[in-house]
Amino acid sequence: MLHKTSRLSLADQASMQIEQLIESGTWPVGMKIPSEPELMEELQVSRNTLREAIRALTHTGLLKTRQGDGTYVCSSSALGPVLQKKVQRTDALQTLEVRHALEREGAILAAARRTEQDLEEMRQCLASCKLAVHNGDYAAYAASDMAFHRSIIAASHNPLLMELYNHMTAGVQESISEVVELSSHSYFLLNHETLLHAIGQQYENQAAEAVRIYIEQSKKHFQQQRG
Amino acid sequence: MLHKTSRLSLADQASMQIEQLIESGTWPVGMKIPSEPELMEELQVSRNTLREAIRALTHTGLLKTRQGDGTYVCSSSALGPVLQKKVQRTDALQTLEVRHALEREGAILAAARRTEQDLEEMRQCLASCKLAVHNGDYAAYAASDMAFHRSIIAASHNPLLMELYNHMTAGVQESISEVVELSSHSYFLLNHETLLHAIGQQYENQAAEAVRIYIEQSKKHFQQQRG
Repeated sequence: MLHKTSRLSLADQASMQIEQLIESGTWPVGMKIPSEPELMEELQVSRNTLREAIRALTHTGLLKTRQGDGTYVCSSSALGPVLQKKVQRTDALQTLEVRHALEREGAILAAARRTEQDLEEMRQCLASCKLAVHNGDYAAYAASDMAFHRSIIAASHNPLLMELYNHMTAGVQESISEVVELSSHSYFLLNHETLLHAIGQQYENQAAEAVRIYIEQSKKHFQQQRG
Repeated sequence: MLHKTSRLSLADQASMQIEQLIESGTWPVGMKIPSEPELMEELQVSRNTLREAIRALTHTGLLKTRQGDGTYVCSSSALGPVLQKKVQRTDALQTLEVRHALEREGAILAAARRTEQDLEEMRQCLASCKLAVHNGDYAAYAASDMAFHRSIIAASHNPLLMELYNHMTAGVQESISEVVELSSHSYFLLNHETLLHAIGQQYENQAAEAVRIYIEQSKKHFQQQRG
């Protein structure tokens, strides 16, 4: 009996093609993927092969099938679901420490590389934080604070750092908002002003120091909260 | 027609069970997994369901099927293959920066938490580095240097940090050894002595500073090498 030799099975090849469509953004998160007949035609595979490919991607967490409806893109990269699953099983303090690792390096790199547009984005996020504190709106504060930290990471212009940070913080948003609720907002606001100033002036060491201080503070809050 | 209602398909349930066997270490990396009939019996699933589960895990990178031989465990966690695939597609300097993020935080946490046993491990790794330099053995130096950095991360006693670091550096070992070959070993040895001393004395700031210096140095070497 003769076999076509190929290192990847047909289903693996099909799932890799679909993965590329997702990771490149051609199929964005939330999109309903084309019907089976269309995909069979496009990828030139049988129904069984296609189903196997779809199931593998569902298992990885890139796709989700809704009974009687269709299959949807639910993550832009395989890293997201895997990392979020890992974070769910990890102690929250340990996750916070890894988050801090990325924030510390992000701030140092941002001080070196930030553009005017990056700074404008950070300023706007910090202004939203202030407004939220003024309005006593904790949820809005937590969201703006997260947006501020993400804007710093984005100013590092390191896509791997951004991807890790964004996926990790998607999983820990709740624990952060708890920490924030218990902490004195004005303290963090002042610290974040200092951090933004240091990044603006490209003072790497001062940026690192500002991050060190808020990390210490947020770990203290976290531990107090745990008792 | 009646359906058993369950949020997960049978294949998903089977693959999750297998994943747990792998992540818990019951099935270690390198192990040949039991035969189809045994697994069908143990997991109480049909041949087709089992095959689908195995294929999904193969796609994730936890298992590898060797034609005419059997299926082997090839990673202890789903995070490893996904992260390594990501690293392969990422610019080496960007990966180095993320690696540094983890090393910086690892050193600071290690200074706070290291045990006597941790210190002994670090000392041994550094002694191996020295011996390798003395023997002019670059490959041995690269391996010992990596072991030294891993021993610091391990002394952070943060399993998530360790897992991310170990998976990431599994992919970048080559680029590190290139950096090391071009760098002045004695410089790094001296710096690493300082770092080890700071961790031993639990001087967090000095540990962070030693890391900052070698990060700057290794990025410089990396960029020179690129031209």
